[in-house]
Amino acid sequence: MSARFVATYRVRCPAAEIEARARGIAVEQSVEMPLDAIDAPHVLAEVVGQVAGIVDDGDDGFTVRIALGVATVGTDAGQMLNIVLGNSSMHPGISLIDVEIPETFAACFGGPRHGIAGLRARVGASARPLSATALKPQGLDAAALARLAHQFALGGLDYIKDDHNLADQPSAPFATRVPAIAGAVERARAVTGRATRYVPMLSGDWGRMQVQLRLARDCGIDTVMLAPMLSGVATLQALAREWPEMAVLAHPSMSGSGLITPDLLFGTLLRLWGADAAIFANYGGRFGFSRDICRSLAGRATSPLHGLRPCLPTPAGGMELARVPELLHFFGPDVMLLIGGSLLQARERIPEAAAAFQRALEEFRP
Amino acid sequence: MSARFVATYRVRCPAAEIEARARGIAVEQSVEMPLDAIDAPHVLAEVVGQVAGIVDDGDDGFTVRIALGVATVGTDAGQMLNIVLGNSSMHPGISLIDVEIPETFAACFGGPRHGIAGLRARVGASARPLSATALKPQGLDAAALARLAHQFALGGLDYIKDDHNLADQPSAPFATRVPAIAGAVERARAVTGRATRYVPMLSGDWGRMQVQLRLARDCGIDTVMLAPMLSGVATLQALAREWPEMAVLAHPSMSGSGLITPDLLFGTLLRLWGADAAIFANYGGRFGFSRDICRSLAGRATSPLHGLRPCLPTPAGGMELARVPELLHFFGPDVMLLIGGSLLQARERIPEAAAAFQRALEEFRP
Repeated sequence: MSARFVATYRVRCPAAEIEARARGIAVEQSVEMPLDAIDAPHVLAEVVGQVAGIVDDGDDGFTVRIALGVATVGTDAGQMLNIVLGNSSMHPGISLIDVEIPETFAACFGGPRHGIAGLRARVGASARPLSATALKPQGLDAAALARLAHQFALGGLDYIKDDHNLADQPSAPFATRVPAIAGAVERARAVTGRATRYVPMLSGDWGRMQVQLRLARDCGIDTVMLAPMLSGVATLQALAREWPEMAVLAHPSMSGSGLITPDLLFGTLLRLWGADAAIFANYGGRFGFSRDICRSLAGRATSPLHGLRPCLPTPAGGMELARVPELLHFFGPDVMLLIGGSLLQARERIPEAAAAFQRALEEFRP
Repeated sequence: MSARFVATYRVRCPAAEIEARARGIAVEQSVEMPLDAIDAPHVLAEVVGQVAGIVDDGDDGFTVRIALGVATVGTDAGQMLNIVLGNSSMHPGISLIDVEIPETFAACFGGPRHGIAGLRARVGASARPLSATALKPQGLDAAALARLAHQFALGGLDYIKDDHNLADQPSAPFATRVPAIAGAVERARAVTGRATRYVPMLSGDWGRMQVQLRLARDCGIDTVMLAPMLSGVATLQALAREWPEMAVLAHPSMSGSGLITPDLLFGTLLRLWGADAAIFANYGGRFGFSRDICRSLAGRATSPLHGLRPCLPTPAGGMELARVPELLHFFGPDVMLLIGGSLLQARERIPEAAAAFQRALEEFRP
C-alpha cells in the first residue's frame, strides 16, 4: 500500500541541526506544510516523507536518506525531479547523491529505446568504442557547417553532432542547416562506405522540437541531441516515448549546479528517462569532474537496472587525440569518445585527423 | 553589425587565474573551441565572446563582464539560458548575477502578457496588494482538495493555487481535480461576490501541458502555474506566446542552484520570458534569501524595461499572517503575498483566517 523509494542527500550543516534539517527535507519534498494541519491518515502514513537514516561524514557533512512515496512521482520525469529535489534546491548546502530506482519507475519511464547496442548497430560496429565530434563554431552558415561535416565524415567518424549552441539562429536555421549537413554526410558516406550519423541539436519548446524532428526524419536522420536540464527532463521523456525510432544523445548544458552529483544525473537518471547516450565533462579536461565520478557514472550507465538498456557514457570537454588510449583503458569499450576542438585544429587535415581518431578506436583491444 | 549584450558573473578563483578564467568564459559561452581554429572573420569579430571588464571584489571573488553576441541567442529562451550560462554552469565557483536586456530581446520575448495590472483586474482589485494560497497536501483526492479550495474561497482570497507537487498523480489526476476545484471555487464566489481565481499547476512536457490548458480553459480558468526551471524556460515562453489569454504564475522549484542570483532570475529573466507573477522564497521564511535580494528582485520585476509589463513579486515560503503588515511595508502595494501552511493550520476556521488575511491586505495603506 505504501511503496517508498529512498533519495539520498549530502547535507552540510552543524551537527546540532542535522536531525531537524533531515525532517525538514522529508516534509519539504512531500507535503510542504505543517504536519499538525494534516488530518488524512493515509497522507500521514503514505505521503509524508520519512527520515530513513543519517550518517555523520565528518566536517559538518552528513549523508541523509529520505523515504518518499512512489505514488507522489506519478508518471512524469519532471515531477520525479520536483519530488526528489524541487524546493530543497533552494536550501543551502544540499546535494542529491543517489535515488533508488524501484521497478515501477523503470517500467514507467522505460529507459533508453536503443542504448549502447542500438547506437553501435546504427554505425555497423559490434563491440568497439564509438567516436563522436561536434560541428562548430556557431556563426558559420549552413553551407560552411556542411563542408565541415563532410570533412569529418570523410575521416569515417561514427557520430557528428551539432554544437549544443546551434539552435535555430539566423546564421544557420535548423530548416536550412539540417538538410545541408545531412546531404554532405550522405555524400561522404558514399565515398567511405561507412554509416556515419549526423546528430542535430533540438531546441525550443517540445512543440518546436517536434517540427524539427519531422524535418530531421525526412532527411533520413535517426539520432538527435537535446540538453535535458535546459529543455526540462519531461521533454527527454516525451522524446523517448513519442519518437521511439530516434536515438537520443543528452547534452550536459545547465547541469552543473552541484545540486545533483554527475554520476547520478548522467549515469542513472538520464538513462532512466530515456537517454541512449549521456555526454559529460570528462576528468582531466577543462571541467572539474573527478576520475571517481567519471568511473561511477560509467558504471551506473551500464549496470543492470531492471532490464533497462544501458546508456552509452560519452566523455567530452577539452579532450585530445593523444588521450585516446588512456581513456579507452579507463572506460573500456562501452564508451563514445567525443573530441571536438582538437580535431578542428587540424584544419585542412581534418579528414586525416578524424581517420586517426577512428583508427585508434577500432584498433583498441581491451 | 555586431550587436552585443553583457552577461555579468561572480567568479571565485585565485587572482592569478582570473584573466584566463574570464577569457575562458567568453569562449565557452560563444564558440566553445580553440580560437586558432576559426577562419571566418565575422565569427571572430561578432560571435566570439569578449571580456568587457573584471573587477576585484576581494577575497578571491571577481565580477566579470562578458559581451556576447545578440544574434547567438536567436529567439528561444532556452537558447538564451544556454548562451549566458549553459556549459559554464559546470565550472566551479561561478554564478550569473546580471544580464543586460537589449530592446531586441524585449521585442522578441514580449514579457508578461497580463502583468500586475492584469492580475489585479482578474480579481477586481485596483491598486492594492493581492493574496494567494496553496492547496495541500498532495495525497488528498480531488474532492478533498475541492473542499479545501471552497473554504479558502469563502474567505475571499484572490488566488488559490495548486501545490506545486500536484502534478497528474493517481490520487488527484489533473482531469478530475481541476473541474472539481474550479466548481468549488465558483460556488464560493456565488456566496462572496468576489472574483477568486483557482490556479492549477501544469506538469509534464509541453504537449501534455496543452491538453491540461484546454481542460483548464473549458473550466473557465484564466490563470495557471508552471515551474520554469523544471519545465524548461522555453516552455514558459511557449505558454506566454501560444496561450496569451492565460496569466502565468512561475513557481521556483529547481531554481536554487546558486547558479543564477534569485533577483536576476525571478525579477528580470522570468519576466522577460513571460511570467506575470514570480513566486520566490521570501526573506525570514524557511529559505535563505536575504532582504537585499528580495528588495532587488521586486525592484527588477517592476522597473521600466523597454515597455514590458511589470511582473508581480510573490514572496512565499513559511510566511505567517502576523507578518503581513511588515511585508507590505517592505514590498509596498505591488506584491502578492502567498501564505499556505499557516492558513491550513486554522483547520475548521480556514474561512475566517483567509478573510483576516484578505482584510489585512485590503486595509493596507502605503
